[in-house]
Amino acid sequence: MSLSMYQASIPVFVRMFGNLSAILDKAAAYADAKKIDPAVLLNARLAPDMHPLTRQVQIASDAVKGCAARLAGVEIPSYADTESSFAELQARIQKTVDFLKGFSPAQIDGSEGREVVLKFPGAEMKFTGQDYLQHFVLPNFYFHVTTAYAILRHNGLAIGKMDYLGGV
Amino acid sequence: MSLSMYQASIPVFVRMFGNLSAILDKAAAYADAKKIDPAVLLNARLAPDMHPLTRQVQIASDAVKGCAARLAGVEIPSYADTESSFAELQARIQKTVDFLKGFSPAQIDGSEGREVVLKFPGAEMKFTGQDYLQHFVLPNFYFHVTTAYAILRHNGLAIGKMDYLGGV
Repeated sequence: MSLSMYQASIPVFVRMFGNLSAILDKAAAYADAKKIDPAVLLNARLAPDMHPLTRQVQIASDAVKGCAARLAGVEIPSYADTESSFAELQARIQKTVDFLKGFSPAQIDGSEGREVVLKFPGAEMKFTGQDYLQHFVLPNFYFHVTTAYAILRHNGLAIGKMDYLGGV
Repeated sequence: MSLSMYQASIPVFVRMFGNLSAILDKAAAYADAKKIDPAVLLNARLAPDMHPLTRQVQIASDAVKGCAARLAGVEIPSYADTESSFAELQARIQKTVDFLKGFSPAQIDGSEGREVVLKFPGAEMKFTGQDYLQHFVLPNFYFHVTTAYAILRHNGLAIGKMDYLGGV
C-alpha cells in the first residue's frame, strides 16, 4: 500500500459527501419536525457576506468535480447551480459522487506533476497536480463542508463531530 | 516527485497554521481598533454547545502534533491548554509549528500501513497510518481551522477565502 493521488482525492471526497448527505437528511427532518420552512435553512448564512447553505454544497461539488477532471485531463462537467430544496441538493451530491466514482485510479495516479491552470477574470493560478490537490482543493473542499455543518449547527440542528467525520 | 505521507501532512499543517496565525493577527488588530475586549472574540462560539475560538485553535494543534508523533512513532508532547490571549494562541501555534518542523520526511514517509490506535474512555479506534491521516486527521484539522475562521467572520472580522487559503 502506498499513498497515491487517487487515494488522496476520490475516496476522501466520496466519503465526505456521504457524511454531508446524511447531515442534510437530518436537516430536512429537523425542518419538518419543527415546522421550519426548509428555505430558511437552505438560505442561512454565518455572516451577511458569506454564502448560504445551498451555495456551500454547490461549491464543494464544484471543487471536487473540477479536481477529478483536471487531474485526469478530462472535461469538467457543468452543473447549473439551480438547487432550491434539500432533495435537489441530495441529487447534486449524488450526481457529483457518481461522476467521481467514474474515475479509475489509473486516470488520477501519476498526476502529481501535471500542470493545472485555473483561470479567473484577469488572473490565473498555476499549480502542480500535487500542490493543487493539497493546498487548494482539499482546504477549499473541507472549508465548504465544514461551513455547511456550522450553518446547520448555528441554526440548532443536533449534529456532532461524528456526523461530520462519518463515524470513523 | 511523488506523493508521500510527509508531503500530505507536515507542509500542509505548517502552511495552514501560517494562514491561521495571520487571521488571528487580524482579529487582534480588529479587537484593538473597535475597542472590543479580546476575550469576547476568544470566547465566541457558533452555537452554545460548540467550542469557542481558543479551543478551536488548541484542538487544531492537538490534531497535528498527535498526527506527526503517531506517524513517526515518537511521544506526543502535552500542551497545557491554558491560552487566554491572542498572543498566547500565537505562541501555541508557533510551538506546534516548531514541533512539526522538527520531523524529517524519513521519519514520516512509509507510515501508510503503520497501526495507529486512538484510546478514548471506554473505546478505541484503530487505523492504518494512511486512513488515520486522510479520514481522521485532515478532516478534523480543517474542521477546526475553518470553524475558527467562521467564528471570526460571524463576529465581523473582514477576512476572505484568500486569508484562509493563504494567497495560493
